[in-house]
Amino acid sequence: MNIIVDAFGGDNAPLEIIKGCVEAVAEYNINITLTGDETEIKNVFSENSLSMNNIEICHCTQKITMEDSAESVLKEKKDSSMAVGLRLLNEGKGDAFVSAGNSGALCVGATLAIKRIKGIKRPAFAPVMPSENGFFMLMDGGANVECRPEMLYQFAVMGSIYMEKVMGIKNPRVGLANVGAEEHKGTELYRNTHELLQNSKLNFIGNVEGRDIPNGVCDVVVCDGFTGNLILKTYEGVALVMMKQIKNMFMGSVKGKLAAGLVMKDLKNMKTHFDYNRYGGAPILGASKPVFKAHGSAKAVTVKNAIRLSVEYVKANAIEAISSSL
Amino acid sequence: MNIIVDAFGGDNAPLEIIKGCVEAVAEYNINITLTGDETEIKNVFSENSLSMNNIEICHCTQKITMEDSAESVLKEKKDSSMAVGLRLLNEGKGDAFVSAGNSGALCVGATLAIKRIKGIKRPAFAPVMPSENGFFMLMDGGANVECRPEMLYQFAVMGSIYMEKVMGIKNPRVGLANVGAEEHKGTELYRNTHELLQNSKLNFIGNVEGRDIPNGVCDVVVCDGFTGNLILKTYEGVALVMMKQIKNMFMGSVKGKLAAGLVMKDLKNMKTHFDYNRYGGAPILGASKPVFKAHGSAKAVTVKNAIRLSVEYVKANAIEAISSSL
Repeated sequence: MNIIVDAFGGDNAPLEIIKGCVEAVAEYNINITLTGDETEIKNVFSENSLSMNNIEICHCTQKITMEDSAESVLKEKKDSSMAVGLRLLNEGKGDAFVSAGNSGALCVGATLAIKRIKGIKRPAFAPVMPSENGFFMLMDGGANVECRPEMLYQFAVMGSIYMEKVMGIKNPRVGLANVGAEEHKGTELYRNTHELLQNSKLNFIGNVEGRDIPNGVCDVVVCDGFTGNLILKTYEGVALVMMKQIKNMFMGSVKGKLAAGLVMKDLKNMKTHFDYNRYGGAPILGASKPVFKAHGSAKAVTVKNAIRLSVEYVKANAIEAISSSL
Repeated sequence: MNIIVDAFGGDNAPLEIIKGCVEAVAEYNINITLTGDETEIKNVFSENSLSMNNIEICHCTQKITMEDSAESVLKEKKDSSMAVGLRLLNEGKGDAFVSAGNSGALCVGATLAIKRIKGIKRPAFAPVMPSENGFFMLMDGGANVECRPEMLYQFAVMGSIYMEKVMGIKNPRVGLANVGAEEHKGTELYRNTHELLQNSKLNFIGNVEGRDIPNGVCDVVVCDGFTGNLILKTYEGVALVMMKQIKNMFMGSVKGKLAAGLVMKDLKNMKTHFDYNRYGGAPILGASKPVFKAHGSAKAVTVKNAIRLSVEYVKANAIEAISSSL
């Protein structure tokens, strides 16, 4: 199996990306194609004494930054590490593509540069997030700000298949994000989607309110990309602010530092639990080939996890399962 | 000044509601009219040796529960403590109405049983929430799932006036909830609202993403009620789950308990900071008379705070300011 990896995506590129690739090659028995400036990549390998075993480089001259528009991947930055990675995937020169770069650009690229699965109306961005005692998928996390009921229904189908086949959740519970439990709640889009889900073969548990989402009340939370992006980022924002306050509490005084010493292990566990890096990557579901977004602040371990998920996605034939479910 | 209070709203009614009223009467030099079953209310006063000084009761026979539909306040529960409170307010028998009961019913009641401020298209539910170092208003937090740009513009105007006149924030910063900073981001509703806000006299700082909201990047976050309700409840849900994990960390072992002893004061401060009860009440802005929602889990101190805010709202002539700003 060959996984294509964007060497210049995310805050810690290229060093952490490359380290993650080296670890993934060692652990998962795969080959990797890194896209990006060849000289720069080679320097990272030699300066850090990393092995290029089973890793090849596809040279390109541009990088997409967080400031670039989502459309840049199709227009003025066609020779960027992201655009070239997507092109290689499209040409069959790899089995999956992983990038920690600009999410908007990756969604546009995965939607327009890669073909869709036949029958799928729009691919969606599908981050896996921590809940109280586990994790859940938010679908759509931001790729499609305008949605129709059939799109939301397809998001539910794709999310269920991914959670079952790749994340190992049996008969995943699907919930529809909404402002109340009753089926008549929400906008027309949500009322019509509720009906489609109710009449489907999915394990639909009904509407879920914002307060239930972090409790892990379901495995797939279905919503439009506008709502999903605000849920995703509010979730991240609150967790970050609270972790910061906990840190201040422990680091702000001598007593606090003593206390931190006593609960260090639990504190680390909690930090790990609410660390989005843990789940490695968010697939862009609906593209006819596996495209994974690793978190923008991804370190080596996250990149390795994202690569592992992409390998599992390929092995599970999830795309075929989605295709035949329609 | 006379404040009407729903004695049977919220999880801790009627005891905590009544206690809060007794404290408010003592502190703010006001009269209070309690709505609800007279016998039951009188029993609470006598059993707890509370003074009925400056408090009168308006007897009614029904209660609205959390399970009742929002419309019940106008239909089958016209003699409930909430419906009667709204009617008294409408008839000029009080200056403001406070309830910790069913939010949906209160929004419907405030929108339909109380007249709107002339020129206001739709009242909105305006919770004040904790940010990293302060607080902000979410506007609309759930009253209107379907919105038009002019409605969102009016939410911004009303939120600004409330934050300035009642919460004491000079020149409040207004942000538009969105999926990215650029003005073309989001749905048509959000693009058109961006334009209206950009051309207004408000202190509009542009779009704000979910991740910025808990950081306190602005004082009024404007959005439709569907999005707002999901932001509000996801925010609450994440904070609750994290506070629970912190509690488990401290209570799960002897070491943890020792640590808790060391940082008890900071821990309490943090809990207080993320406690929605602190801000007392969410006004329903746009109604021609002040209606306040206290948190469903309100204890006496929250009820007292909600009453204080309603007194300040009346004193500040905020409704007149909203009216003349249009």
